[in-house]
Amino acid sequence: MSTPAESDAAVPRRRGRRPAGEDTRAAIVAAARTEFAARGYEGATLRGIARAAGVDPRLVHHYFDGKDDVFVAAMYLPVRPQDIVAGVIAGGPDGMGERLLRALMGVWDTPTGRERLVALLSSVLTSESATAMLRQFLVREVFGRVIASLGGPDADLRAALVASQIVGLLMARYVVRLEPIASADAEDLVPLIAPTLDRYLRGSLA
Amino acid sequence: MSTPAESDAAVPRRRGRRPAGEDTRAAIVAAARTEFAARGYEGATLRGIARAAGVDPRLVHHYFDGKDDVFVAAMYLPVRPQDIVAGVIAGGPDGMGERLLRALMGVWDTPTGRERLVALLSSVLTSESATAMLRQFLVREVFGRVIASLGGPDADLRAALVASQIVGLLMARYVVRLEPIASADAEDLVPLIAPTLDRYLRGSLA
Repeated sequence: MSTPAESDAAVPRRRGRRPAGEDTRAAIVAAARTEFAARGYEGATLRGIARAAGVDPRLVHHYFDGKDDVFVAAMYLPVRPQDIVAGVIAGGPDGMGERLLRALMGVWDTPTGRERLVALLSSVLTSESATAMLRQFLVREVFGRVIASLGGPDADLRAALVASQIVGLLMARYVVRLEPIASADAEDLVPLIAPTLDRYLRGSLA
Repeated sequence: MSTPAESDAAVPRRRGRRPAGEDTRAAIVAAARTEFAARGYEGATLRGIARAAGVDPRLVHHYFDGKDDVFVAAMYLPVRPQDIVAGVIAGGPDGMGERLLRALMGVWDTPTGRERLVALLSSVLTSESATAMLRQFLVREVFGRVIASLGGPDADLRAALVASQIVGLLMARYVVRLEPIASADAEDLVPLIAPTLDRYLRGSLA
């Protein structure tokens, strides 16, 4: 397997006692968890994460596209939520609820989906700082984009309402495994829950 | 403070090295957590909990109304969910969503509410058995009653959909503290979310 030190002459050799390849990536992710927990999503920097991992900052850029990408790995997320949100927004306002649900269940309806979700939520519940970290990330990288696409004075409220139904669906289907939601086909759940999301996104909130 | 051994001649003196009063109650609750985790909600018995706590079974009955009551204490719940559900059902189908939301936020909008909710959810996420335990309790003591009051072939699906929105609201408002849901007046959230619950309870699910 090719390691960065072998394949990319511009990346300096690793310092200290860190192993190469996947182990380096794992060390960066572990250091990122500590840094995000200590400084929050806003406060943590790629330079600080590299320092904590004992690697050159350029190695962090070799493995990750940016701070949000490191965060996705540190929080056990199987995909970048930003990518899902971008796809959902790109389709326009019509059917946004359905697209959002299909994208989410497409991510978590996988063999490791539930395991990762439980790990993520456990991490969030272990400390105030982990909670603040996830909230900052969601607001800045996920809901910020939804809000921008929706516009209007109630956009932040609408996005939070959507989040409340989505988090509840994830909890019911994957964590508590409440029937019949846990075993239902994703396609059977979409028409039940999409109207809720569409009302939160575009309906009257009077 | 009066202890059961002092105030109730019918309750035998405690055995072994267990302390009296609040400490006895705490010992029962701690033993209950272990028993529920090991045997699930269905499998655990008051007799087994008493044995694990090293107290006479009558002492358990002195402190608790029944297994569901011990469970409520073991799971850090501030009130008996059964009581909330009973009040919500008693009002009939009209306005059930509003009553449910007001009752829930009345419980958790307290100084210790968030703390207890995080403790409960952490406990649920720590193990498969804790998850199964909460699910069995919810199905038997909470949703079983809602389902019975609703009737109809889709009652279990409707109850699970309601649960998904409620759990998501609790996560958003108390755990992740997502704004503006976290700081909103409960009365401002009721008209936003009640229509979702009412649709899940009584609306068309076609």
